[in-house]
Amino acid sequence: SITADRLLGRLRALGQIGRDSEGRLTRLAASEADKAGRDAVAGWMEAAGLEVVVDRIGNLFGLWRGGEAGLAPVMVGSHIDTVIDAGILDGCYGVLAGLEAVETLRDAGIVPPRSVVVAAFTNEEGVRYAPDMMGSLVYAGGLPVETALASVGTDGTVLGEELARIGYAGAQAPGFLTPHAYVELHIEQGPVLEREGLRIGAVENLQGISWQRVTIEGIANHAGTTPMAMRRDAGLAAARVVTFLRDRVARGNAPTVATVGCMSFAPNAINVIPSRAVFTVDLRDPDEARLREEEQALASWLKHLEAEEGVTISVERLARFAPVAFDQGIVGMVERAVSRRGLSARRMTSGAGHDAQMMARICPTAMIFVPSIDGISHNPRECTAEADLVAGANVLLDTLGQLSAA
Amino acid sequence: SITADRLLGRLRALGQIGRDSEGRLTRLAASEADKAGRDAVAGWMEAAGLEVVVDRIGNLFGLWRGGEAGLAPVMVGSHIDTVIDAGILDGCYGVLAGLEAVETLRDAGIVPPRSVVVAAFTNEEGVRYAPDMMGSLVYAGGLPVETALASVGTDGTVLGEELARIGYAGAQAPGFLTPHAYVELHIEQGPVLEREGLRIGAVENLQGISWQRVTIEGIANHAGTTPMAMRRDAGLAAARVVTFLRDRVARGNAPTVATVGCMSFAPNAINVIPSRAVFTVDLRDPDEARLREEEQALASWLKHLEAEEGVTISVERLARFAPVAFDQGIVGMVERAVSRRGLSARRMTSGAGHDAQMMARICPTAMIFVPSIDGISHNPRECTAEADLVAGANVLLDTLGQLSAA
Ligand SMILES: NC(=O)NCCC(=O)O
Ligand SMILES: NC(=O)NCCC(=O)O
Repeated sequence: SITADRLLGRLRALGQIGRDSEGRLTRLAASEADKAGRDAVAGWMEAAGLEVVVDRIGNLFGLWRGGEAGLAPVMVGSHIDTVIDAGILDGCYGVLAGLEAVETLRDAGIVPPRSVVVAAFTNEEGVRYAPDMMGSLVYAGGLPVETALASVGTDGTVLGEELARIGYAGAQAPGFLTPHAYVELHIEQGPVLEREGLRIGAVENLQGISWQRVTIEGIANHAGTTPMAMRRDAGLAAARVVTFLRDRVARGNAPTVATVGCMSFAPNAINVIPSRAVFTVDLRDPDEARLREEEQALASWLKHLEAEEGVTISVERLARFAPVAFDQGIVGMVERAVSRRGLSARRMTSGAGHDAQMMARICPTAMIFVPSIDGISHNPRECTAEADLVAGANVLLDTLGQLSAA
Repeated sequence: SITADRLLGRLRALGQIGRDSEGRLTRLAASEADKAGRDAVAGWMEAAGLEVVVDRIGNLFGLWRGGEAGLAPVMVGSHIDTVIDAGILDGCYGVLAGLEAVETLRDAGIVPPRSVVVAAFTNEEGVRYAPDMMGSLVYAGGLPVETALASVGTDGTVLGEELARIGYAGAQAPGFLTPHAYVELHIEQGPVLEREGLRIGAVENLQGISWQRVTIEGIANHAGTTPMAMRRDAGLAAARVVTFLRDRVARGNAPTVATVGCMSFAPNAINVIPSRAVFTVDLRDPDEARLREEEQALASWLKHLEAEEGVTISVERLARFAPVAFDQGIVGMVERAVSRRGLSARRMTSGAGHDAQMMARICPTAMIFVPSIDGISHNPRECTAEADLVAGANVLLDTLGQLSAA
């Protein structure tokens, strides 16, 4: 079994890196804080005898050589970049538990036939540079490295320049190793496991994600003198999209979720009818056909709204990932490890996007979830019981041990 | 009759002051742009032989001494502050036409018994500091000058400090002159006169105005993992308020109007459920009882929404003005001037708030409207035919001539 104190101590230490003057944790991809976090992780990897490798998109790998040079390695990991005002577990848990599992095997004198690689992928959160899961997407061949490096951030910076500045623009071509398997341990970030009183989720699929930005153009006019019937109110039209999405999605029993997270009005003045509203739509569904149906329902409703409100609507696609089915063999291995350790588990769907979603394009992949207290994430209140963190790391250890054995 | 070229030339010149690099006109109260606009107007007043006086709230007056020192002066005017991305007429037309009328009388060798004061009131628009019509409200004794000077703007500035900075924190006590009458010429900013093919509106009343700021607190959480039924989405709750207001107000035949002009979400991230939404509500009605009914309907619906969406809602009152009836004597004078000049007119209600609304508290008051093309205002497309601008100024000239004569 893993050494709980070593894992928990490193989680806490990494969680102190990137705090602002008010104590808020924000470690955006390729920032100074990210550099400090990467330096700590790379230091721990080296101290554990792993060979540190960085690829061109900044993905950080710790390699532990196995006994048989000809076999493809097993990869475990996640990411260490965070959202704004984040918790300490999202991503970091998977990277540090992967390292912990390797050290546990090594301390037990085991040298598996396959090498093991611990990965920390660049820009999983997508907060500074879009799309999210960028490092693993590039690694899996889904986005040219040059395109990714040219990404302009919300702060106007260019990812390639920022990676060079923090010393993490590596030399290796992304995808330089094709893994035998990829396993990612992560907090659930949702309420399912807690609600059902279970310790582990054996994640067998990941829902599709559709991100769009909608711009509605109306006509600015005076709030006091313009009769209701003569308005072309972009803000009202935007509000109707928000309620349409929720009414439609909450109506049935489908697991579809829809979120309008960003919203802005122009000119944004109290006595002026909004001439423009810009907002984002995050639509997700485990079923590709239903996700497409929801996207189409929104698109036709926007057409209808244009006519009804006398506004002009344009839509920009920001990200689109189809649902992913994970490898049933690895999911079964996770379930058997859970049983052997006397833990409770269920098969489940990941609601969040993860690097595993991209790695599934190039190798058999699965994920392991542990419960999130109150189902809260992307929030400093994000938390998981220590016993659950340790249990999850042990399930990862067992699964890694089995995958690297042959 | 007035000199059309002088009036139109000054309107165009003032309309060039406060344009940004993209050519948008934004001359917010007590800003650098406002200072430049005030300097121009004060310069024209002085060149016309008027004595320039500024009071403590920054109201700018040009005094033209009449023949009999003991008589109360007649005041004409409006404001020169603008909304964001404004047209050139709103407010400026009333100030510059007032000055034009004085110069026309003076050029004709007339010295009326009563003095005439041309006023440009501070912060009529209320975009930077609430409430709107602030300068005239303070002048009329409806708001203590200290309270008004302490107003914190949408940009965090304090009005008193900004007025001092631009050199328009005057020495006179607001209300230092109680006028014999106040007349304000303004563009209609709505569609009524144009629709009916009329040149002049004799404004006999002004609708009630209610401004509120609503803050909704929900809980930030992950957009992908949080089931629809478990959300406390502040953004969705805000959208429901926007559609509620429109559905309620557009339903009957009442002239009530409701507008949500400002909206912001926090943390405003694509994959985070909004934890907070802040927005404004502008509600208006010519009938005080119905306006109160609409305010109460909103308040009870917010209670209902709190329970239904699991959010917390707080409401702050930003401004509240009851409907105002203008002086029938002056309205009749305006109508007679219209007939004498062979123009067409109707009596009407003002949908917009105006300084006249505040001045009506301390002296007989009325307004004169000219048509707005397409009923558009608070928009750079705001426009009135030059012939109508000239006609309106001549009606003001005649009314001022009559009021100052005795
Ligand atoms: N795991 C995680 O929070 N990823 C960010 C991408 C998303 O699901 O919105
Ligand atoms: N006339 C005018 O636009 N005043 C601003 C106050 C308001 O009516 O909103």
